[in-house]
Amino acid sequence: LDYQHVQVPFEITLWIMLASLAKIGFHLYNKLPSVVPESCLLIFVGLIMGGIIYGLNDKSPPVMDSDIFFLYLLPPIVLDAGYFMPSRPFFENIGTILLYAVVGTIWNVFGIGFSLYGICQVKAFHLQDVSLLHNLLFGSLIAAVDPVAVLAVFEEIHVNEKLHILVFGESLLNDAVTVVLYKLFRSFCEMPTIKSVDVFVGVGKFFVVGLGGVLVGLTFGMTAAFTTRFTKEIRVIEPLFVFLYSYLSYLTAEMFHLSGIMAIIVCAMGMKRYVEANISLKSHTTVKYFMKMWSSVSDTLIFIFLGVSTIGENHEWNWPYICFTVIFCLIWRALGVLVLTFFVNRFHVNTITSKDQFIIAYGGLRGAICFSLVFLLPDFHRKKLFIAATTVVILFTVFVQGMTIRPLVDLLAVKRKRESAPTVGEQIHIRFLDHLLAGIEDISGHWGQYYWKDKLEYFNSKYLQKILLREYDQPKSSIVLLYEKLERKHAIELAEAGQLGHAPSHPSLINNDRTVITDKKLEVTLNPDVLENIQEILARNLYRIRRTGPAYNRHTLPGETEHAEHAKEILILRHKSL
Amino acid sequence: LDYQHVQVPFEITLWIMLASLAKIGFHLYNKLPSVVPESCLLIFVGLIMGGIIYGLNDKSPPVMDSDIFFLYLLPPIVLDAGYFMPSRPFFENIGTILLYAVVGTIWNVFGIGFSLYGICQVKAFHLQDVSLLHNLLFGSLIAAVDPVAVLAVFEEIHVNEKLHILVFGESLLNDAVTVVLYKLFRSFCEMPTIKSVDVFVGVGKFFVVGLGGVLVGLTFGMTAAFTTRFTKEIRVIEPLFVFLYSYLSYLTAEMFHLSGIMAIIVCAMGMKRYVEANISLKSHTTVKYFMKMWSSVSDTLIFIFLGVSTIGENHEWNWPYICFTVIFCLIWRALGVLVLTFFVNRFHVNTITSKDQFIIAYGGLRGAICFSLVFLLPDFHRKKLFIAATTVVILFTVFVQGMTIRPLVDLLAVKRKRESAPTVGEQIHIRFLDHLLAGIEDISGHWGQYYWKDKLEYFNSKYLQKILLREYDQPKSSIVLLYEKLERKHAIELAEAGQLGHAPSHPSLINNDRTVITDKKLEVTLNPDVLENIQEILARNLYRIRRTGPAYNRHTLPGETEHAEHAKEILILRHKSL
Repeated sequence: LDYQHVQVPFEITLWIMLASLAKIGFHLYNKLPSVVPESCLLIFVGLIMGGIIYGLNDKSPPVMDSDIFFLYLLPPIVLDAGYFMPSRPFFENIGTILLYAVVGTIWNVFGIGFSLYGICQVKAFHLQDVSLLHNLLFGSLIAAVDPVAVLAVFEEIHVNEKLHILVFGESLLNDAVTVVLYKLFRSFCEMPTIKSVDVFVGVGKFFVVGLGGVLVGLTFGMTAAFTTRFTKEIRVIEPLFVFLYSYLSYLTAEMFHLSGIMAIIVCAMGMKRYVEANISLKSHTTVKYFMKMWSSVSDTLIFIFLGVSTIGENHEWNWPYICFTVIFCLIWRALGVLVLTFFVNRFHVNTITSKDQFIIAYGGLRGAICFSLVFLLPDFHRKKLFIAATTVVILFTVFVQGMTIRPLVDLLAVKRKRESAPTVGEQIHIRFLDHLLAGIEDISGHWGQYYWKDKLEYFNSKYLQKILLREYDQPKSSIVLLYEKLERKHAIELAEAGQLGHAPSHPSLINNDRTVITDKKLEVTLNPDVLENIQEILARNLYRIRRTGPAYNRHTLPGETEHAEHAKEILILRHKSL
Repeated sequence: LDYQHVQVPFEITLWIMLASLAKIGFHLYNKLPSVVPESCLLIFVGLIMGGIIYGLNDKSPPVMDSDIFFLYLLPPIVLDAGYFMPSRPFFENIGTILLYAVVGTIWNVFGIGFSLYGICQVKAFHLQDVSLLHNLLFGSLIAAVDPVAVLAVFEEIHVNEKLHILVFGESLLNDAVTVVLYKLFRSFCEMPTIKSVDVFVGVGKFFVVGLGGVLVGLTFGMTAAFTTRFTKEIRVIEPLFVFLYSYLSYLTAEMFHLSGIMAIIVCAMGMKRYVEANISLKSHTTVKYFMKMWSSVSDTLIFIFLGVSTIGENHEWNWPYICFTVIFCLIWRALGVLVLTFFVNRFHVNTITSKDQFIIAYGGLRGAICFSLVFLLPDFHRKKLFIAATTVVILFTVFVQGMTIRPLVDLLAVKRKRESAPTVGEQIHIRFLDHLLAGIEDISGHWGQYYWKDKLEYFNSKYLQKILLREYDQPKSSIVLLYEKLERKHAIELAEAGQLGHAPSHPSLINNDRTVITDKKLEVTLNPDVLENIQEILARNLYRIRRTGPAYNRHTLPGETEHAEHAKEILILRHKSL
């Protein structure tokens, strides 16, 4: 027996196996997953495992290593989240999401930090040795909503798309704020004195970390799309590039202390469109499937480890501090959502209802990121208290909030997600409205989201697609792609039901009046072609008309371009006619 | 910049990226891959990389770690080989393959070992200090044909299936012999005296290592099949089990010093059939695709590392020893193939032609396994000479033999692989013949391969399928599955060509004479159903008739079973009528 030799891969494989088997186990009983979220069950399994290890060895079970978490377990989940991010609702609500993620997180950090410092001043609690900075540091790690926990719960309750993207988007984008504030306070803790310059540097850092992450992600995303242009001969390694480039973007960002989560999300969102067009259908199935599989396993492992790490002697118990932490987390989040939504609703027609606000506040779950950050704290005498408080907050949010959110959503009758995918007709309408609104924004001179979307689309079709797509001659609009997908699905269904009209692989079995059938078929098969033509003409020309027609824009100077000349002429004509 | 933190995953990702990009690069020039095998090009890239590293650092570049090779790079390739192993030709030629793998490898080890010892006795060569045992140890590592190198070359030249399976099967199954002999001689080298008991223990070990590997593989394979019975609710982690269980089988076998390669191959071959039936179509695409991708990347990395490791100061050059090693490797292999094939041909109707023999002998490529084993040798003063000799043999076989084998196959007009897949008619015929031959063997009382295959099939359908398959009610024969696959493929082709007769997703566009079409369709769609019925009846009943009908067997005692009674009665009747 030579266990030493194979220990590392053997133990990793066994842990993954345990996670997968646990997942299978839950789904054997159909009723269990519908009552309790999977994350709770997994933490519970972890608690049992930890208890067993603790009982057998009589020492604390191994704690989830922060390095393993940040380098190996987190990226697959974030990649999956970014790749399958519904880009339309995300960009439509990007302003609100950023407000929640940046201002909301800062609000929570300082709110929780200062109020806990207030608690520490009460002599009866014996907490006077916890300084303001330590409280703020603790606030910075406990304030951030965790994408893994949010995803695990929200994927099961199926709230409407906007609500989902608000909570989930916030949990992803607050990474930059969390990283900066956490590192800032940690370095402040080690400094003898803090100058006001340091504070300003911190504010500047926030932009560097966030925008740097976006830049790294964009660079790798575009490189990935460009690379898949050349994989036609070796289809089999196509999926690899999607994973390699996105992982590299994460690692590179982490290496430069930028936001890795932002980088990998931007990378995945940026490459998706081009990669999908370049790689083969089977490669794409593999990418999607493997991404889901990987993130699902990572997710499972994280929750199990969370449970295992809870058991042990890492905790220092202090009732008031821990209870007030939970209470402040709830209060400050609720207040933050209320105040911010008040401002958001003033500027939007499509407002966030009070039910939605409640779910946003209640869905602010904490998870493994807080847990890993608290273990990364420098050693000081109250670290164990912080660990205990973090553990309690995570368990409280995941168990109490995670288990009650589904009944609450039912009770409040929160608007649910629509079940069916949009029809082709709807898609054409949406696209048509986009162009219309872009035109209106253009005429009114308002630089709104449709204006920018239109500009981006123009840039994409004029430059990016030419560089990044292999077959630029036939750019397919999303409607045509959807149609093809529906046709393919339908064909498979027909084949599986044995309804396929015509089977050339067994010609001997087809009866003699074949010519008749062929004639009939020709007559019918014109339709998809015609349809495709119609759709292509619609999708492309709606755009082309806008591009080539005259457009008034108060931001183009007279004589700037030919179009502008033309537009000016028309304007003069109109003035005259008036 | 915090490189330390992300170093390990970053460098691994970069190496994989380099390998993938190198692969893309080769395929950009269409002519290059058709002249030079990819393995040669990759070694060449490795040599350049190694040269650059050597030039920059002025010290030997890092050598491929044997642990990394055996634990991480080899398993994906062997798993892929086992999973996609054409089981029919493999089992039809299992005797010949085992003869080549076991007797052939032993022949080569002792042949090369003793003749090199002879060379060492020549005083002019200054090699008298290399003992017989060291020569045998060297022989044991240099004799084994390498599956990775064989696969890389033979996948490109498309020889006929039998020839391919003979060379490739040998390279896989010689693992047990190589492991045993290598470890035996290595332990002998460290012993003061060798008793005859040790030699007998060595012979016994061979069976333990080989059969132990098979047993471990079977256990894990069956467990994997059993596990996939319960994954219906969580399709997304299905592919994981295929990888986890096969990797565990490899690691477990290695842990107990059994043959890991045998274990993973048996595991993959054993689970394949049941897993395919249990998991969803998309999961299966992902499994296949990912396996191919993974093995392709491992393969690329191995050859690049082989090139990188060649550069450096690990070598001791001795012209006679190195030249004679190459010559003896060629001679003993050729002799071995000739002698063994002589015996094989005496017992087979379908003989191995002399052309085939030449390709078998010439295709005995050495690769990364030898390379890793030579670095695992205990330190002694001539280790660098062995490393040099091994490197030269590998480079010689991969470059000279690998590059000339394709022209030679063309020149000799070796029978090629048939391009098209067998038709349904052929499949029915093959299956029919199988049952016929099983019957003949049964009547003649010969325990041949068809007899055993039939017994196994019976055991499978009576016990294994009931335990391992989820939907046992509808067992589908391979013909029905093939038919379904063809239908599905055809449907997708139709859909992609826009030829699908009927598109219910856009009912408004279908013209009015719909009823006519539907009528026509009904008339035609009967055919696939009828066909499926015919095939199912054929596939199942051919078997059932044999099972339930009377069968004479000289190995069943009178009165043993009811059937035997019945058979005896018929026999008596026949005797009387004669």
